[in-house]
Amino acid sequence: MPYVNIKVTGGSEAPSKEQKAKLIKGVTDLLADVLHKNPATTVVTIDEVDMDNWGIGGETVTERRKRS
Amino acid sequence: MPYVNIKVTGGSEAPSKEQKAKLIKGVTDLLADVLHKNPATTVVTIDEVDMDNWGIGGETVTERRKRS
Amino acid sequence: MPYVNIKVTGGSEAPSKEQKAKLIKGVTDLLADVLHKNPATTVVTIDEVDMDNWGIGGETVTERRKRS
Amino acid sequence: MPYVNIKVTGGSEAPSKEQKAKLIKGVTDLLADVLHKNPATTVVTIDEVDMDNWGIGGETVTERRKRS
Amino acid sequence: MPYVNIKVTGGSEAPSKEQKAKLIKGVTDLLADVLHKNPATTVVTIDEVDMDNWGIGGETVTERRKRS
Amino acid sequence: MPYVNIKVTGGSEAPSKEQKAKLIKGVTDLLADVLHKNPATTVVTIDEVDMDNWGIGGETVTERRKRS
Repeated sequence: MPYVNIKVTGGSEAPSKEQKAKLIKGVTDLLADVLHKNPATTVVTIDEVDMDNWGIGGETVTERRKRS
Repeated sequence: MPYVNIKVTGGSEAPSKEQKAKLIKGVTDLLADVLHKNPATTVVTIDEVDMDNWGIGGETVTERRKRS
Repeated sequence: MPYVNIKVTGGSEAPSKEQKAKLIKGVTDLLADVLHKNPATTVVTIDEVDMDNWGIGGETVTERRKRS
Repeated sequence: MPYVNIKVTGGSEAPSKEQKAKLIKGVTDLLADVLHKNPATTVVTIDEVDMDNWGIGGETVTERRKRS
Repeated sequence: MPYVNIKVTGGSEAPSKEQKAKLIKGVTDLLADVLHKNPATTVVTIDEVDMDNWGIGGETVTERRKRS
Repeated sequence: MPYVNIKVTGGSEAPSKEQKAKLIKGVTDLLADVLHKNPATTVVTIDEVDMDNWGIGGETVTERRKRS
């Protein structure tokens, strides 16, 4: 019955369809392994957040990526 | 003063403008009826989640819909 | 398959067990009525937020309640 | 280490790139000032919510804006 | 830089300290494996939700557990 | 009309009542300054997350604090 929300950067860094399927499978398996949660009712949602809308260290990821 | 967030599948399953208005009205009325919350300050947001980004039973809704 | 999160004030304003059951039933029915969502996979979580931890109009609900 | 999520209306009311950078900087500074949190690990995400998907007072922001 | 939120039932079903550490390690590794995300900036929060505050199938988990 | 959620570590690191009031005032002012949002309808909630339930770098904050 767990609910999991995963936020990652989108745009040019967005995960592929296959990578999203792997995240969903992986986190569902993890909850079954560690907490014996029933995979049938484990819900996962993935949010792809624009790099202008994600901040760390007081600046947007867009700015941060320019320097690296 | 309640805050409600509703996540539903988007894309070809996305609710119409009218359906979203009904959800907002319905949940605001429910909070007024059950908890006597003031509708004026009840806030509702609706997220439409892509079917590749929603998982249940360890697979994406995209995969699940193909089988049904 | 919808996921709904409801945040209301807790503490002395916390909903009772019966009120929480009514909110869960009501919002699940609403999603079935408006969007034909299957109640079996509709998930609802309720957060009770302390009045010191909820702000509106730039002040905590605790302060706001003192004046009313 | 704080995590902050800011939801504002999008579409024609969406914040500009510069405004989003100011929100991220401002909230990171606020957490450093008030709670001495390290800016390096403060994470902020901004969600721009469509005006059809945001409700207050039992109606969508789209409807509300029409009257004002 | 990902942010993950995991909601599970609390109370008598709450995960132990060790199980929570395993969930955090597991989901951080998953994001490194699938998306090459840097573990140093992967943030995970776990919410333990009271069984009266979690609904599925239109009823609380408390009610559901009584029947099983 | 913005909605802001702030998550910080709780327990021995929990913000005081006064600090929470400052965060609410500060973030409401920031949204008024940067985006001209009406403070009257700006809603802020603060979650205090147990250090066993917060992970960064693949480990709990509890473990991390022991080493520093």
